[in-house]
Amino acid sequence: MKELTVDLGARSYPIYIGEGVLGQIGELFAKHAIGKGSPLLIVTDSHVAEHHLGAVEARLKEAGYATVSYTAAWGEKSKSLAVLEDIVGAALQAGLDRKSTVIALGGGVVGDLAGFVAASYMRGIRFVQIPTTILAHDSSVGGKVAVNHPLAKNIIGAFHQPEMVLYDTATLKTLPDREVRAGLSEMIKHGLIWDAGFTAWLEQNAQKLISLDQEALQYGLYEGCKVKAAVVSKDEKENDLRAILNLGHTIGHALEAVAGYGELLHGEAISIGMVGAAKLAMRLGYSGQIYTATKRILQTFGLPVRLPAHLETEAIMSAMMHDKKFMEGRMTFIIPTEIGKVEINKNVSAAWVREVVEELKQEA
Amino acid sequence: MKELTVDLGARSYPIYIGEGVLGQIGELFAKHAIGKGSPLLIVTDSHVAEHHLGAVEARLKEAGYATVSYTAAWGEKSKSLAVLEDIVGAALQAGLDRKSTVIALGGGVVGDLAGFVAASYMRGIRFVQIPTTILAHDSSVGGKVAVNHPLAKNIIGAFHQPEMVLYDTATLKTLPDREVRAGLSEMIKHGLIWDAGFTAWLEQNAQKLISLDQEALQYGLYEGCKVKAAVVSKDEKENDLRAILNLGHTIGHALEAVAGYGELLHGEAISIGMVGAAKLAMRLGYSGQIYTATKRILQTFGLPVRLPAHLETEAIMSAMMHDKKFMEGRMTFIIPTEIGKVEINKNVSAAWVREVVEELKQEA
Repeated sequence: MKELTVDLGARSYPIYIGEGVLGQIGELFAKHAIGKGSPLLIVTDSHVAEHHLGAVEARLKEAGYATVSYTAAWGEKSKSLAVLEDIVGAALQAGLDRKSTVIALGGGVVGDLAGFVAASYMRGIRFVQIPTTILAHDSSVGGKVAVNHPLAKNIIGAFHQPEMVLYDTATLKTLPDREVRAGLSEMIKHGLIWDAGFTAWLEQNAQKLISLDQEALQYGLYEGCKVKAAVVSKDEKENDLRAILNLGHTIGHALEAVAGYGELLHGEAISIGMVGAAKLAMRLGYSGQIYTATKRILQTFGLPVRLPAHLETEAIMSAMMHDKKFMEGRMTFIIPTEIGKVEINKNVSAAWVREVVEELKQEA
Repeated sequence: MKELTVDLGARSYPIYIGEGVLGQIGELFAKHAIGKGSPLLIVTDSHVAEHHLGAVEARLKEAGYATVSYTAAWGEKSKSLAVLEDIVGAALQAGLDRKSTVIALGGGVVGDLAGFVAASYMRGIRFVQIPTTILAHDSSVGGKVAVNHPLAKNIIGAFHQPEMVLYDTATLKTLPDREVRAGLSEMIKHGLIWDAGFTAWLEQNAQKLISLDQEALQYGLYEGCKVKAAVVSKDEKENDLRAILNLGHTIGHALEAVAGYGELLHGEAISIGMVGAAKLAMRLGYSGQIYTATKRILQTFGLPVRLPAHLETEAIMSAMMHDKKFMEGRMTFIIPTEIGKVEINKNVSAAWVREVVEELKQEA
């Protein structure tokens, strides 16, 4: 079992990564003083429940915990205030109190949703992240939790750090191949923004990662979480540095919104967005090799680099204007300046962005 | 103009109290570095909008601010996730960004609602409280913000401190008499929990306060806010001491819930609850004079002390079990131990509480 600490002073917490760590959930909960006097609420989704809920419930029961579970419908649509209200109703009926803990068992959607329940229930109770996707190695670390609004993603939320993250790589074996690749997209992002050596390792180990080789996966998740933890430790509330984690996300979020949250997986949308950022880098005078290398690694992982032609450019531009990374009308982008390094550029011309969106439809 | 500071380290903020302070809103906003580059969102309700929205908008416009306003329906029903979602939609369409500020113009409902919008919009932006009721001298100080769930009041929320509180006592002149008295109920509570001298002053100045004598009102609000600020400064997140502010609220919230949020104003419900707490004090061995004095001051202000007989005792007991002040099954009450002092008692017998609820129906 690998262990990593997210260093946030009084809010520091560990990430445990390994095959079978869920077998130790009782000991780990006891170690982190999660009490048995108040019920735990497990929030999960219909896909994850089928594979993992029973085992987690059984282990917690063995360890002496009372649990109640809430299974949301699979998918982004569950990240809504309506579902939040429903979960809070279940929590009230189960008698959850201020000493209770919410457990997010699932991917990024479940983590964001359950995390915002924990952040807002009785004005904040504790929570534990148990990510069951590769994508969630990103979202489960750093305490950003939120639900969506019909007009914008992740717009209603909080910064609420978990007590711990339990990453059992055995749970990843049930992931469909497309989700594996999409999840690896965030791992590549962590390389591209912070660590050229890790990026090179990723490219060399693409096949192992895609085929879920446990050793490669644990190393990749550990290094990916390490980048995330390093950035978050330096800027918990996204005043400046943390924004670099958004590489590819400005275009990516807009694509998800316009395509209707479903045509493109999040990791696929940001894959296209990262190619877009590399194209903007060229316009800003940075080397064209960044673009070439970015595109090559994403294609090695079988990730899309071309923007679906039927998505309207104006709709994409308009979706970006609602994105919370725009401050006072200027457009802000995370721009790669070399492999493993990025800058936060607050003066990117909207006309360039429009051109890049058009060009991305021609990418091959 | 009186000024008071809520001392919370980096989150400290001032409360300005006086007749006509809204005339200085432009200077005060500038003093507290509220920028003009991002739009402000004013949240208010239909009653307050009629009297005060136009003037606040005009003053802010004069001072160079761009504003957008959202007028919620009057009353507790607006403290819902559905209204929150609607406000966030308006905020997005108006282009509110992370540098924007939310202004809560109104009473406790508006403050709680707008405060939770500010706490959760883009994971937290700034907000300013402009209370227009006496009751709100309590709710506008201390950073507790929330909306209701169909099953429980204030159950979804956050701790989010305002940048400042602007208390213009001229706005209180439009309050109906019943709301004036109900608002003074929280002021009496501040006396009862913390300051026997202030309690005596309140009893002597009841008529002046009820008739909205500006000098008496400013002194009463200042002293009431001072108690609240002192308690909040010592325990921002309600780990222990802050719970004393809930004197009368355990029974009071249950009465509001069972009566359906409308029959009893909040201040009226906690008036009955404070009499109930004094009755529990007697059972715990404290002097019967606390009960006599508590009842006398509340009646001097024309506040109710009798629990409406048609409210079912079992429904009230059941509503209390959902109250978030119960931890791990035990019943916690704030108990007056003398006038100006209370204790947090975590072992109050449910049987006694049931008896007291019955007795309160006979109070005269």
